[in-house]
Formats: sequence, structure tokens, C-alpha cells
Amino acid sequence: RIMRPDDANIAGNVHGGTILKMIEEAGAIISTRHCNSQAGEPCVAALARVERTDFLSPMCIGEVANVSAEITYTSRHSVEVQVNVMSENILTGAKKVTNKATLWYVPLSLKNVNKVLEVPPIQYMRKEQEDEGKKRYEEQKLDRLETKQRNGDVILPVINPEPHTVGYSQSSLIHLVGPSDCTLLGFVHGGVTMKLMDEVAGIVAARHCKTNIVTASVDAINFHEKIKKGCVITVSGRMTFTSNKSMEIEVFVDADPFVDEPRERYRAVSAFFTYVSLSKEGKPLPVPQLLTETEDEKRRFEEGKGRYLQTKAKRQAQMQQAAQ
Amino acid sequence: RIMRPDDANIAGNVHGGTILKMIEEAGAIISTRHCNSQAGEPCVAALARVERTDFLSPMCIGEVANVSAEITYTSRHSVEVQVNVMSENILTGAKKVTNKATLWYVPLSLKNVNKVLEVPPIQYMRKEQEDEGKKRYEEQKLDRLETKQRNGDVILPVINPEPHTVGYSQSSLIHLVGPSDCTLLGFVHGGVTMKLMDEVAGIVAARHCKTNIVTASVDAINFHEKIKKGCVITVSGRMTFTSNKSMEIEVFVDADPFVDEPRERYRAVSAFFTYVSLSKEGKPLPVPQLLTETEDEKRRFEEGKGRYLQTKAKRQAQMQQAAQ
Amino acid sequence: RIMRPDDANIAGNVHGGTILKMIEEAGAIISTRHCNSQAGEPCVAALARVERTDFLSPMCIGEVANVSAEITYTSRHSVEVQVNVMSENILTGAKKVTNKATLWYVPLSLKNVNKVLEVPPIQYMRKEQEDEGKKRYEEQKLDRLETKQRNGDVILPVINPEPHTVGYSQSSLIHLVGPSDCTLLGFVHGGVTMKLMDEVAGIVAARHCKTNIVTASVDAINFHEKIKKGCVITVSGRMTFTSNKSMEIEVFVDADPFVDEPRERYRAVSAFFTYVSLSKEGKPLPVPQLLTETEDEKRRFEEGKGRYLQTKAKRQAQMQQAAQ
Repeated sequence: RIMRPDDANIAGNVHGGTILKMIEEAGAIISTRHCNSQAGEPCVAALARVERTDFLSPMCIGEVANVSAEITYTSRHSVEVQVNVMSENILTGAKKVTNKATLWYVPLSLKNVNKVLEVPPIQYMRKEQEDEGKKRYEEQKLDRLETKQRNGDVILPVINPEPHTVGYSQSSLIHLVGPSDCTLLGFVHGGVTMKLMDEVAGIVAARHCKTNIVTASVDAINFHEKIKKGCVITVSGRMTFTSNKSMEIEVFVDADPFVDEPRERYRAVSAFFTYVSLSKEGKPLPVPQLLTETEDEKRRFEEGKGRYLQTKAKRQAQMQQAAQ
Repeated sequence: RIMRPDDANIAGNVHGGTILKMIEEAGAIISTRHCNSQAGEPCVAALARVERTDFLSPMCIGEVANVSAEITYTSRHSVEVQVNVMSENILTGAKKVTNKATLWYVPLSLKNVNKVLEVPPIQYMRKEQEDEGKKRYEEQKLDRLETKQRNGDVILPVINPEPHTVGYSQSSLIHLVGPSDCTLLGFVHGGVTMKLMDEVAGIVAARHCKTNIVTASVDAINFHEKIKKGCVITVSGRMTFTSNKSMEIEVFVDADPFVDEPRERYRAVSAFFTYVSLSKEGKPLPVPQLLTETEDEKRRFEEGKGRYLQTKAKRQAQMQQAAQ
Repeated sequence: RIMRPDDANIAGNVHGGTILKMIEEAGAIISTRHCNSQAGEPCVAALARVERTDFLSPMCIGEVANVSAEITYTSRHSVEVQVNVMSENILTGAKKVTNKATLWYVPLSLKNVNKVLEVPPIQYMRKEQEDEGKKRYEEQKLDRLETKQRNGDVILPVINPEPHTVGYSQSSLIHLVGPSDCTLLGFVHGGVTMKLMDEVAGIVAARHCKTNIVTASVDAINFHEKIKKGCVITVSGRMTFTSNKSMEIEVFVDADPFVDEPRERYRAVSAFFTYVSLSKEGKPLPVPQLLTETEDEKRRFEEGKGRYLQTKAKRQAQMQQAAQ
């Protein structure tokens, strides 16, 4: 699909959220198709988790996004999908890898949305593929448990904040879930949620550094709770950490099923987004340091620094490996 | 144009904001065409004001909206446009008047957006039409001055609010202004702003009464300040008054030109929206009374009551006149 | 309606697909209204066929599209609609004919979507109008039978293709059918399908000649099979023929009802689109010749050449007639 002006910021860079939405749609289609490939109860694959994703190079208006998806592992009740996005400049023919993402889906029965069905197993070319997939499956299972416990936090409003403090750039939006946001089961597509999260995170980043910003990476996102059509969702973001050239923003999604539902507002998703600031020529700019005020802000800054250093170390290890 | 699921709430009623957007687009086309009808500097008509508008009957998914527009008065620098919206059920052929709106536009030069051009005068059938138009022109001019002074208010966040208080239902959303939101001059279409305002007001109303709600009327809206492409706009709403069967919500639009601009965040628009609550059969439901806590909330409630009684008296006078 | 940036390519020319979508919506409204004009079973008009359409002059961002529709013939079970599109520059007042299209609709019962209802006959001003309409009706009926047989072809992927070969530019996209894509009957609007077809054909054309391209014409399109909400549709295009200044692209639409349906993937629509390449000043550019490799490609090239020469001959005959 060709990238349109509405898919991009004013500098012409396509929003990370638009790309995440395309990735999720491709993943939902391939895994729903797979889960319905054997006779049995019809089902729709629902997004359970997206692994950490790096945005390797920016995509621009007028370029064509090529999205390809492949099922790489199946457990009894879940499907792992690998999605690759290439941007193609159809005028020059130049192609670049934009993204590689790994998503986990779970098949839910069309008749009873609370019933998780069994996944038809795939065939592996080599035994190691199955073993590695199983390892990835166990790892993500652990991580999902962890975030579930972390989910209690709330973003409190700040009055008359100083520039570069957490309160100055924090932002939130509300969105009424409409029919086009939803799957056949009447629940919000994971991709729609991620697009809104990227929108809020991008505004937080732009408010902080007042320049053109782009999504650099998204940490693993777990979708613990479904969000139903007709809900109001509140998406809130606050900056947690800055390095010299990057900003980390924590984003929360809360769902409020406020019509005809006994249920209270609940936390549906949370995640960390990393942004960089770019000059008009597309070069990375230095980022103003985040001013932390409260104890909580200082703690979150340190935790963010930990994640930042860990990712940096991992990347260096990979580069050394690749260089050998 | 046929109304789609995305234009409506889950009960199938088309959002008031969708209708306001169609009205404004029709007004912008007819007044831009008129202002360029004589040789001279090319210009784009920008929305300056929408008069109070009643939503006479709800429109539904699958119905066709017929929008017609007519220029009814011209002053030296402004154009008054009357827009009528009819909903047509193309299956039964039934037509109903949905809206009658009056809008004021001002021609801005394409070359210099701060230059207001002169409007070619229209011909009136009768002298009284011109006199009545002039009276309407003077009245709206006064009202615009008044709201300009009122615009200093800010919505402060409330922590852990009780149900049915002002703080409980107040809501806000942020929106990054994209290219498709803007006119040729690079400023947000008035219709886009009104659609976002209706969205926030609708969420405030639904949070308060937790039922299906529809827009009943919109008070006069003045567009004092233009909003440029690339701005972030914050749209906030709070309930000001409830009668037995209606809710009044005040909505503010603030623009934040946060990239490459020396300018501070500023108030661009504010307005009052009135909603009613409907049962599944489309009958009006009683509305829970708004609980006011602070002195400001009590004052705003009384002011809202004043507007409510004034509108009611006007309507009764019109009905008596019509009955004679 | 005013043309927005998202309706156009990066050179500012409105996509042919956007125009086809507006045309089809106008046709669906007027024919649904007509078919329900007599008491009887309520129905929705479904698009069965669009006759060959030429794009006479490009439309640009900021221009207003004026769409008018008229019923020109009725058979027992079908309605012929003529739709005209004018582009209007509201700054200069200039108007140009963009398109004249002829569409055929069939009324389907709201209660039973497989039941085709009877069409109320229209009154003709002159007997010849009815006779000419009848002739058009018989001709399109024959043509529909023909394409129905042709529909078996599949687009196979090619690895590492050479520039200007068929495999180099062939493209496909997938789209998950959402609620706003559909009519009241829950089937995809013909206009939505045509817009996606134009998008793919445009990507094929741009990949081939690496310049700004615009839709010049669309051959007759027959809608043999309905596509239901929730389907995944795959739209694929490949180049079949190039003349000095034009490219012909064949587009296929396949529907995959992959949830809750026993049915296999099926061919829903196919059609030929013709594009021209334009310089920055809007002048036609020469098109690189298509390199055909396989026997099938050579055969399709010759068939395309046949269509091209036939159209050229027809146009010359019309111009001679007009000149007399």
C-alpha cells in the first residue's frame, strides 16, 4: 500500500503507529487463516503479544510498504508470526528493511469469545526450529506474567509544569471505539491500539524536544485484556528516561466500558516506546535531559536507564557476533 | 453521501459532529466560490462563526444526507451562509429535516493569510432581506466580542472524583493536525474542529449518564484563532448544567504550535453542546442531576440554567407564533 | 466534496480510484432510491457492471468534485445509471468534465440477499431512447458472459525479475473488509473494490516507469460475485501491454471468506486499467516497452495490443464524426 500524507508527520516520515497497524493486520490474517485451516469451530485470532521491535529506517510519503508474514511456531493454544516490512521507493526502485516484528496470537471461538481453541500444529523443516520456537514461547510467557503485575500505575495530572519535567510533556487522549476499529468478534484490533499508543507517545516526545521526532523502537507489548466495541479508551503517556539522543515514553491504555456494563474502568495494555529527534536533514539531534522531581520519577528514570543500557549491550554483542 | 457505521454511535445514530462537518464543508465551498467570483486576489473562505444549531431529528446508518447551501447575506468582509441538511431513507423514500445552520465566513488571501479581502455583494430579492441580514450581522458581531473575553478558563484535573460530579465526567483528547484536516491555506477546517468538539462532549455526556446519548443542539461557536497544520490540539469538555432531560457541556479547544514556533499554547475555540439521553427505543430518558462542588461549578450551573430557560422561552414563543 | 491530500498522489493528482468510488456511491444512491420507489419488498441496488470509462482531465487537491447521476434505462431486473463528474476550481471558477461513466445495478432484497427483485420501469421521452438503452443492455449482457469464462488466471510470484519485465512490476495487496466498506446488506461496495484495484494498478504502473502516473481509462468491469464483510480480499495486478505512451494493467480481486465459511477462495472481479506517465509539467512521457518472456505474456501482450488498436480506431471514428 502507498503511504499517504495522513500516514505521516509534517516532515513526511510515516508514523511508527501506522506501520505497527499494518504489521498487526497481516499477522491477524495469517493466523486466523491458519487456525481455521482444519475443520472445527470457526475462530478469530486475537493478538496476545508483540515482541520488541526496532524501526530500522524511516519510511516516507509516496513509498510503498511491502508486508510479508509467516508462521514460525505453534503451541497448543498460540501462534507465533514473523512479519517483515520493506519500504520501496517506486520511483528509484530502492528497497529498505523497515521492520521485523514477532507477534503472538490466540484463537478465540466465534461463538463463545471466552473460549480459546486449539491451534493446528505446523510442520518444521528442522527439529531445531521447533526447539527454538519453544524456547521463545516459554520466555514470552514469563514476561507476560511480569507485566501483568506491573499494571497498577496511574498518570496523575500536574498543574503549571516547568519545561523538560515529566509533567510538562505528559499527554493523554480519549477515543470512542467504533466499528472499524474492531474484529469480527467486536473487540478492538491490537493494531488500532498500538497506533493510538504511538500517537500519544509521539506527542509526548515532540512536546519535550519541540522538534521532528520518529519512533525508534517499541518494547514488548502484552495485551492482557480485550477492549469491546463502544468502550471509551484513554491512552496516556509520560516520559520516563532520556539518553543523549533518545527518549523513553511509557504508555498506558485504560478501557472504560461505560454504557450498559457493570464493569469498572480497567488497564488493558501498557508499553515503552523509544523516540529519537531528527533535524530537517534527517540527522539525529541531541535530546534535552528529562528533569525528574519526585521519588517515583527518579526511580522510573533509573529503571529506564537500565533498559537502555541492556539494549545497548545486546546490540553491541550482536554487532560483534556479526563482525566475526 | 450514505451514512456509514463509522459515522455513528453503537445505537446507529449519526454523530452530531459528522453532520456539523458536512455542513461546514458545504459552507466553505459556496462561500469560497462566491468570494472568487470577481476578478481579483484569489482567496479561501475561513469559518468565523456558526450560529446556534438544533438537531431536529436523528439520522441513521444507511440513510443519505442531502446538504444544500445558500448565501443569505454579505457584509464588506464576511459572508452568511444558510445550510440545510435533510436525511433521506432511500428504502422508504421518507425525508426529514435534520438541521438548519447559519455560518459566517471571511475571505483570506491565498498569498497573505493575514489579509482579509473584500466580499462581492449579493443581490437581494427584497429590501427587507438585506435589512434583516444586516441585523443578524450586527448581533453576531457583538456576541463574538463577548466570547472573546470569556476565553481565559482552564479545565483542572480532579483526582478520584465521585460519580455525577463535574470532575467525574470531564474528558479531553489530543489530536495532531494532519494534512487532510486542513484547507489550502494550511489551517484546520472549522468542520474538523467541530467534529472533535462533539466527540469530546459526547464522551462527557455518556460518562455522566452511562446510556446512549445524542447531540440535541450546539450553541453559537466563534472561531477567534486559526489553527495551523502540525499543531497539537487539546479538546477538553466539562459538564456545566443538567435539566431533567438534557445536559449542557462546555468544550474548549487549545492549540499548541509546538514545533518550530515561538508561540505559546492558545485558546482557539470554545462552545456549549447540549445532549439528551435516549433509551433503546429512542425515547428520552431522565438525566442524573449534576453534583456541583466548588463555587465556580455552582456559578456555571446557574449560568447554564439561564441559557436553558432562555432557549425554552424562545422556543415556546416561536411555537405560539406558529400556532396563531 | 473538496479533494484532500489523501485523495491524491504526491504530484497532487486525485487518484482515479477516488473518483470511481464517488461515481459508484452516486449510482448506488439513485438506483436504490428508484428501485424502492414503488411499494413492495425493500431492496438495495448492487453494482453489477461499470462500462468502459475515460478520465478526460486530471482533478487536483483543493478542487471540488460535482457528481450528478441520472437513470437512463431499466430492464426487468437491472438499472442503467449515467454519472457525470465535473471538477471545479472554486478559486478561478473553471469547470472541467472529468468523467462520464455508465453503471448497471441489480436490486437485491433486504430480507433475502439472493433474491433479485423487479425494477419499476422509467418513462422515456422518445421511443429511440428506449431502443438504444435496450441495445446497450443486450451488449453488456454478452460481455458479462465472456469475462465470466476468462476468470481462471492466477498471478505467480517471480524471483529476482529484470526491470521492465512483467514480473518486475507485478504487485498485490490484501485488505480485511471492515463495516464501513459495506452496504446495508453486508457486502462490499463496488466503489471500494474499484478504489483498491486502482491503487494496485497504479503501483504496477509506477514500478514500471518510475515516474508520476495517472489513470487514463478503465475497461468495463463486471462484478460477478459479491464479497462479504469479514473476508480478506487480495488485489493483484500485472502489466499486459505498453504502447508508446500508455500501459495496460490487468487487475484481479480474489475473496477469501476465511472465517465461519465452508467456501474456498474465489475470483470476485477482474479488469483492465490504462495509465499514462506524466512529467512534472503534466506532459505525457514515453513509456518503456514491456519485456515479455513467457508464451502467456506474449499472448496477453498481443491481446492488449488488440484492445488498444480497437479503442484507438473507435476514438478516431468518433472524432471524424464530430468533425463532420
